[in-house]
Amino acid sequence: MKKTINIGLFGFGSVGRGLYDVLGAVESNDIHIKRICVRNIHKDRGVEADFTDSADDIFSDSEINMIVELIDDAEAAYTIVRRALENRLPVVSGNKKMLAYHLPELIELGRQMSTPLLYDASACGSIPVIRNLEEYYDNDLLVSVKGILNGSSNFVLSKIFNENMEYAPALRLAQELGFAESDPSLDFDGWDSLFKLVILTIHAFGIYVAPEKVFRYGISTMNEADIRFAVEKQRRIKLVGHVEKLEGGGVYLWVVPQLISRNKYIYSVEDEFNGVVIKGRYYYKQFMFGRGAGGHPTGAAVLSDITACRYDYSYEYKRMQSANPVHHTEDVVHRIYYRYRTEEDSTLIHFTKVRERYSSPEWSYIVGDVRLADLVAVKDKLAGKEVFLAAFPWD
Amino acid sequence: MKKTINIGLFGFGSVGRGLYDVLGAVESNDIHIKRICVRNIHKDRGVEADFTDSADDIFSDSEINMIVELIDDAEAAYTIVRRALENRLPVVSGNKKMLAYHLPELIELGRQMSTPLLYDASACGSIPVIRNLEEYYDNDLLVSVKGILNGSSNFVLSKIFNENMEYAPALRLAQELGFAESDPSLDFDGWDSLFKLVILTIHAFGIYVAPEKVFRYGISTMNEADIRFAVEKQRRIKLVGHVEKLEGGGVYLWVVPQLISRNKYIYSVEDEFNGVVIKGRYYYKQFMFGRGAGGHPTGAAVLSDITACRYDYSYEYKRMQSANPVHHTEDVVHRIYYRYRTEEDSTLIHFTKVRERYSSPEWSYIVGDVRLADLVAVKDKLAGKEVFLAAFPWD
Repeated sequence: MKKTINIGLFGFGSVGRGLYDVLGAVESNDIHIKRICVRNIHKDRGVEADFTDSADDIFSDSEINMIVELIDDAEAAYTIVRRALENRLPVVSGNKKMLAYHLPELIELGRQMSTPLLYDASACGSIPVIRNLEEYYDNDLLVSVKGILNGSSNFVLSKIFNENMEYAPALRLAQELGFAESDPSLDFDGWDSLFKLVILTIHAFGIYVAPEKVFRYGISTMNEADIRFAVEKQRRIKLVGHVEKLEGGGVYLWVVPQLISRNKYIYSVEDEFNGVVIKGRYYYKQFMFGRGAGGHPTGAAVLSDITACRYDYSYEYKRMQSANPVHHTEDVVHRIYYRYRTEEDSTLIHFTKVRERYSSPEWSYIVGDVRLADLVAVKDKLAGKEVFLAAFPWD
Repeated sequence: MKKTINIGLFGFGSVGRGLYDVLGAVESNDIHIKRICVRNIHKDRGVEADFTDSADDIFSDSEINMIVELIDDAEAAYTIVRRALENRLPVVSGNKKMLAYHLPELIELGRQMSTPLLYDASACGSIPVIRNLEEYYDNDLLVSVKGILNGSSNFVLSKIFNENMEYAPALRLAQELGFAESDPSLDFDGWDSLFKLVILTIHAFGIYVAPEKVFRYGISTMNEADIRFAVEKQRRIKLVGHVEKLEGGGVYLWVVPQLISRNKYIYSVEDEFNGVVIKGRYYYKQFMFGRGAGGHPTGAAVLSDITACRYDYSYEYKRMQSANPVHHTEDVVHRIYYRYRTEEDSTLIHFTKVRERYSSPEWSYIVGDVRLADLVAVKDKLAGKEVFLAAFPWD
């Protein structure tokens, strides 16, 4: 018999509440939320539960044998997860930003303390991507992981490309439906996708690349001209997180809008859904698709982590001990579409080869080949400019 | 450090050869095929390996510490797997027929001998469905698992519905391309899908239902009239394996052609691909898609099983010890399309409610509601008759 789990839960936002509902629905006699730590203890949350605003109340409760951390604040989440591991309390986290910045040291700490830290729910909500990379695609056959990792931006892009909505009303609709963060930058500038991609990269290829090193571009500056360009090419713009291993062991990753043609799996990933394509030698492509966000789907994913913890499951990070180590590279060339307006902005990006050039009084664009390293070099300069870029996928 | 794996391999057909190629490609220093047992030792297989035709040579080799069984013959496979478990040798099997008939006793034997038996590759080739059901969807939220589990029949159906090919040439093409078994009945009468469904049902709901108890109907008798009926309804016929838990804990399963409309995930699963939809409360639907057959994709899946074995992974069959046990039921009503010709055949199936009735000199059909139990009761009578049936999905 497995032991009874008494959870100390941090955070009771959308996902925390989702977990509470899901646990109620499974009628488990073995998994209980013992106490919930929230910032504002006076807010009426409409549930019967033991709330506190003191982390000490959780950590000093000797009956609590698992910590579940579902708060927004990355720094506070970091403190909680460290403290849990230091106290040898198994911990489940959903904070992708915190994980993307702190995973290497938390993995090391977990190892020292022989205490598991699970976070499948942090990337792609209810789609078990991390678990599958960890357990099933954990051999040298894996070539790439690529997908739509952010539901909010995908929702907006779907409305634009399927229903001809304009950007601003599509964004408002997403916010009204609760898909978009109140700070749209997290979703639409690709930060959220980037944090997930950094986490996936560890499990896919055993390599940690800090978020600030990665080229990341979002859809905030996308305009009617870009949409028209895509539609004329019978493509849709999708915000894609992509990590790939090259011949020779170089691994590159980036978050970038991509011009996706109809024959691609992720072309049909609509609305707030996520979809991930896992590609490998010999098994070719696998596609996983599901709800990437939302309180209930993510709550269900957190429950899977809790159950796994209860069965003493822990990530083994096998790829980090691989006999064929990989290295981070930016030495790869992609074809991109770059739209700009001013002469000055036209030279911002260094193209190794220009293939098409268009200009008009309203807008201009270049289609050409760019080294990823050259994009990384100008990524800060691109921010805030009245320009947009999107990549053509390789295959 | 994990131990070196020396494999005793049984069978060197398409999947055995696939595993051999895949292992060569990953350049692992830790996993070797030590010896290969084949029926005909004189056949030139074009590879450098140590072949034998004696199982004793494998089992008496003290360096061999894992058995991989990839032969066609279900009875011989059963003997090998039993012997491996009795000798406390971890074993990977790809024989879905053998597993579908013998899993309960093999699970028990594995438990007694504390020896793992893994077989993810047996169902859906490179799609890790079993592993995900076992590890991730292992809670009471799971509602149904439904999918295209057989690539050969799906290939033929794709050619018919997308390219207007007729049945016979589509089947010949499938056989030429190596997708179809030389005995088409396995693929086209739904046996292969059924064996996989029985295995998935154990991991999804913790219940074993013997293949002979399950209603299974294939596409062998499908004709032009059925195709026209589907096309007029803007649907495609797909051969679907389906297990679902009802309110109250009843679990039913069947393999049946289904009339799938365009808004369904499996509508777009084409050619030899497999696609599985996992549905649960709170996370709604997840979709997994990939190559379900073929030597290399399946070989890659076998490698995942081998690697998991090496890391002492074993299925826990948690659903079999669930606090909320389920039971097998046939007490469920589905709407079906039933096409027949003779007056005698028209009464073969008992409809609880007839919704449409069509007749012409060439063919007649009824659309109506049928209890699954009533279908099970006549399943043997349906065989060989000049009739066809297909179900309308519920949702």
